[in-house]
Amino acid sequence: MRHHDLLVLGVGSGNVLIDDRFSHLDVAVVAEGPFGGTCLNAGCIPSKMLAVTAEVADGVREAGRHNVRATSDGIDWPAVQERVFGRLDAVARDGEDDRRASDFVTVYRGHARFTGERELLVETDDGPETLHADRIVVAAGGRPVVPPPVADSGLPYETSDTVMRLDEVPERMVVLGGGYIAAELAHVFHAAGTSVTVVEKKETLLAEQDESVASAFTDAVRDQYDLRLGRELVRVEGSPGQLRITLDDDSVIEADALLVAVGRKPNSDTLDLDKAGITCDDNGMIEVDAQLRTGATGVWALGDIVPGPPLKHVANREAEVVAHNLLHPDAPRTMSYDVVPAAVFTRPQIAQVGLTEQEAREQGKEFVVGTRAYEDVAYGWSLEETRGFCKVLVDRGTGRLLGAHVLGPQAATLVQPLVLAMTFGLTARDVAERPLWIHPALTEVVENALRDAM
Amino acid sequence: MRHHDLLVLGVGSGNVLIDDRFSHLDVAVVAEGPFGGTCLNAGCIPSKMLAVTAEVADGVREAGRHNVRATSDGIDWPAVQERVFGRLDAVARDGEDDRRASDFVTVYRGHARFTGERELLVETDDGPETLHADRIVVAAGGRPVVPPPVADSGLPYETSDTVMRLDEVPERMVVLGGGYIAAELAHVFHAAGTSVTVVEKKETLLAEQDESVASAFTDAVRDQYDLRLGRELVRVEGSPGQLRITLDDDSVIEADALLVAVGRKPNSDTLDLDKAGITCDDNGMIEVDAQLRTGATGVWALGDIVPGPPLKHVANREAEVVAHNLLHPDAPRTMSYDVVPAAVFTRPQIAQVGLTEQEAREQGKEFVVGTRAYEDVAYGWSLEETRGFCKVLVDRGTGRLLGAHVLGPQAATLVQPLVLAMTFGLTARDVAERPLWIHPALTEVVENALRDAM
Repeated sequence: MRHHDLLVLGVGSGNVLIDDRFSHLDVAVVAEGPFGGTCLNAGCIPSKMLAVTAEVADGVREAGRHNVRATSDGIDWPAVQERVFGRLDAVARDGEDDRRASDFVTVYRGHARFTGERELLVETDDGPETLHADRIVVAAGGRPVVPPPVADSGLPYETSDTVMRLDEVPERMVVLGGGYIAAELAHVFHAAGTSVTVVEKKETLLAEQDESVASAFTDAVRDQYDLRLGRELVRVEGSPGQLRITLDDDSVIEADALLVAVGRKPNSDTLDLDKAGITCDDNGMIEVDAQLRTGATGVWALGDIVPGPPLKHVANREAEVVAHNLLHPDAPRTMSYDVVPAAVFTRPQIAQVGLTEQEAREQGKEFVVGTRAYEDVAYGWSLEETRGFCKVLVDRGTGRLLGAHVLGPQAATLVQPLVLAMTFGLTARDVAERPLWIHPALTEVVENALRDAM
Repeated sequence: MRHHDLLVLGVGSGNVLIDDRFSHLDVAVVAEGPFGGTCLNAGCIPSKMLAVTAEVADGVREAGRHNVRATSDGIDWPAVQERVFGRLDAVARDGEDDRRASDFVTVYRGHARFTGERELLVETDDGPETLHADRIVVAAGGRPVVPPPVADSGLPYETSDTVMRLDEVPERMVVLGGGYIAAELAHVFHAAGTSVTVVEKKETLLAEQDESVASAFTDAVRDQYDLRLGRELVRVEGSPGQLRITLDDDSVIEADALLVAVGRKPNSDTLDLDKAGITCDDNGMIEVDAQLRTGATGVWALGDIVPGPPLKHVANREAEVVAHNLLHPDAPRTMSYDVVPAAVFTRPQIAQVGLTEQEAREQGKEFVVGTRAYEDVAYGWSLEETRGFCKVLVDRGTGRLLGAHVLGPQAATLVQPLVLAMTFGLTARDVAERPLWIHPALTEVVENALRDAM
């Protein structure tokens, strides 16, 4: 049995907490997948590189809106693959090489399971290796959920883990799911020339977004996709490349490929956590306190395997908190999930922070809604943008923001001043009126949504 | 002589202060140019509508960077004219119609000059009209400076007032000047197919920007324009459409058109201000106190005719202050120019707030510089952006921002969280570490520039 001072299980967000502050320790990391984890290899980063590529293609197709004469000849998908994954795979390899070159970190490659308190067995290529550590950080992430009718069909399907690396763009693809991963990937493949059918059991896409955002987004993409809303997949038949997908209204969709994007689940079920005294909630998320300590002494957890929003910027913050707490056990920090922004890199782009309007209503909040359309600010005229808007929810009592939502170009950037406002407890009035907002920058849509709520 | 309770001289930013709060008064506005003033008719708004059009054209030409196959066939300039000015001219007309339809506002059209204390003579089409008012707001704006070698040549030239409305795109244009107006318009015409030569007496373009921004911008456009830096125009000869422009190194440039964009000056010299007891500084700017009162009792001034930065968002804020002070003379507000952001809508786009590095040095500030390149954050990878950066200057003593500069896509949006930080006196550390910054949004370039300064 090898002993380490600190062991990190996972090479995504867990791995980022190891830096030179830990060089006085004997540190181990256990890698099952490539370094960089989901984000770098099959998540945020490649999907954004593909999303921007799709936006460029859309921009060419719609250049006429700005009286720019252009002819579009599609996306060179193999070149995109090389550009995106040529770069990202090298980053992942360099990440592993750097760790292996470190004089205080040992890398073990293989799947790990707990065998006791702070004790793990790793199935390496050279055989099983038992490891023990004084302190362990579990950051083993999650994976796509595959519903039984798909899993049991025996027919091939794609997930976010595989679809971005397809050699060829499918002619016809069914996207199962209407959440942000489904929406981002549908956008990418639509722009690449795929005929996309989206099957979603809810009545709108992005149903967890603010209701006006979900509805505006669904309307925006209605003429791009064959939308099957309020429908569930019941059967997959046919043969590889010639799938027949039956929905619960008995309609049948023929497709070359099926992308399953109905959600993700934590990898906690693969780790024998009970042997280590680590407990999970009903969703399989490892239970942690505000310091991100699990129920087992000396074991922390973070990332997609704990209950917070499964977002990379949240995981990075959790990694900062855990790193601090490992280094300063006498002055621990706590993790706050009070103000968590998020973006969906679709077209239109979407960003949010805080409550949706429906959540604010359900929580019985007294609030004022302020909205401003992009087409009502000068930069929106410049963009010839007719759909976008910013919406803010302002608490009647305190004048502070309860939530904010942006749909349209630059949404993920536009939301940040509102994230600051919520984080620092500034009132909507102060944020609108005290700083200057550049005219005619797109930020005026935010300024004026705030003013609309005053 | 007609008497009014309140008279506003100018229909740009002055006009925006008149709203229903003044409906108990007999209000006059004096319009010389079209409603909306410089911003709507010949400034911020049309230039941004043209700038975004240019960006769309650039995007088509550079689509291959994202492996998108596209062919560019140029900009349909007459259609752009119709789209942009068809829209803006209608807004200007509607603005005038609305004012004329108001039951408390009288519109006088013509040039006005002061004839005494709060007394003006307006040269209307129906003859001169003498007006007197209890209170007057002077917001008569500014106009382009035309240097003597151009003005005296007798040959045609363009300014920002005329160039955006040219019927045809010139084949070869000399842009005289290297400031933001010159830079924005050079970008527009370059994208529209004009061969552009820029003549600037300083050694970089945008020399008033932070030195790293000016230098990066100059490098970025060096292969797009024929840059004649450190040079002055000494002579214009030839004939309309066939100009021969001689520089101070005796070089001669042939061009179809000459755009003069060397700066703007206030219209104060056209108003006989001395007759009203209104004084100006050495630059011809009307002297005002913090409440925006001139030296003459009952006379306020705002916009490009007062010493603050000649920016529309500044003028709008000044209009809010003056409106408040007219309505609440016992509780006046003051105008602050402490934190004034600005953007240049070129490609690359530029935004700034606060001090430049050279200003911070000159003022003897003790500061740390933090920078982050777009290419070092994931969304920068997505954009395939290799030039952009965010740079922050943080005061060593207070930890607060002295200034911030962004060059690259979305710069005008990215700067706003830093504007909030400066306005609310937040430290760089707090702004970096307390809010979450969406991964992988472009805002990470701001977050990481702040972290770089810590």
